[in-house]
Amino acid sequence: MEVRKVSEAVIRRLPKYYRHLLILQKTGVERISSGKLAQQMRLNASQVRQDFNCFGGFGQQGYGYNVSTLLSEIKNILSLNQPYRAVVVGAGNIGTALANFEGFERDSIAIEALFDIDPALIGSSINGKPVLHTDELETYIKKNGISIGIIAARRSAAQNIADRMQAAGVRGIWNFAPMDLTEVEVPVENLHMTDSLLCLCYKMNQNNLYEE
Amino acid sequence: MEVRKVSEAVIRRLPKYYRHLLILQKTGVERISSGKLAQQMRLNASQVRQDFNCFGGFGQQGYGYNVSTLLSEIKNILSLNQPYRAVVVGAGNIGTALANFEGFERDSIAIEALFDIDPALIGSSINGKPVLHTDELETYIKKNGISIGIIAARRSAAQNIADRMQAAGVRGIWNFAPMDLTEVEVPVENLHMTDSLLCLCYKMNQNNLYEE
Repeated sequence: MEVRKVSEAVIRRLPKYYRHLLILQKTGVERISSGKLAQQMRLNASQVRQDFNCFGGFGQQGYGYNVSTLLSEIKNILSLNQPYRAVVVGAGNIGTALANFEGFERDSIAIEALFDIDPALIGSSINGKPVLHTDELETYIKKNGISIGIIAARRSAAQNIADRMQAAGVRGIWNFAPMDLTEVEVPVENLHMTDSLLCLCYKMNQNNLYEE
Repeated sequence: MEVRKVSEAVIRRLPKYYRHLLILQKTGVERISSGKLAQQMRLNASQVRQDFNCFGGFGQQGYGYNVSTLLSEIKNILSLNQPYRAVVVGAGNIGTALANFEGFERDSIAIEALFDIDPALIGSSINGKPVLHTDELETYIKKNGISIGIIAARRSAAQNIADRMQAAGVRGIWNFAPMDLTEVEVPVENLHMTDSLLCLCYKMNQNNLYEE
């Protein structure tokens, strides 16, 4: 199979296909055409076919897609066929929300521990996960085969945490701090909540000035 | 000025310019060239100029951008020169994290109240914001001039909440429920946390298969 670059826009749609196919499977749908899938997801059929073609197809002309097969292919592409162990640095509100969120476990992503520097939090646990001192971060990552580092700390601490996570061996960083990390070699996925809210403010006021 | 559609990619960069310019202003930088701004933000200079040209320019050939002027223009474009009042439906972990988050207030976005159906939560308050019964949602929105509705409730309730928020008069919806809302006329900004994490899993495993 020819290897080619997959655009960010296609990657962003993969979790949406995954979520939608999970629902279809749950409701007993066995196969679906690209047209129907596109309609349900409010995409267009040729886009759906193009997206899947990035990864080699999966459909059969005149038959459509087998839902279970497609779901398992997308799970493979997203590399969800392996478990992930994660830690969160920052046991504030976002860190706590993440530790309490049960949804990641469906995808075999487990938050194992949180780290903070606040003595009032260290030694406690959140949803059964221990809160440890940030000094122990590197040791914990190495000892427990942690592959995902989650940064839910304040902005001023974020770069240092990222550097330390990377040096200790994480394979990817999920960054909630409102800044862009530099000199990180592993993939970083930023989730800047305020940015999303500001985009909403824009759209609320510039109704005719953006593409759907 | 010619009105033209602004692409989603440009809109997504506006909050990043805004954040970066706030820092420049705070650190006393008075003017900056598109080249320098691009370098600091890891964009390219022609992209920065193109982005600003969507809104009419702002720069002077050979001088660069005045940081305060540019910041105030971007604040205008993002419509942050007005206060917003918001409510959150769902006083679980995400709702609580949002209510506790102080960062929105810098941008004059105030969360006024939370709504839930859990009797154990109703009547309590989170960071000084009351938790009310969801039955009171419409009345509260109308009475208090709420313009932003935030959905932090479970998936199965999200569409109904969106319909009710819209009918009561919100001008935009910020949706944390992992589903795409349908038949909503006001702008919706989705923040699907798990999607972001799944994109990270993809990138961790397909290092050579995506564009930076």
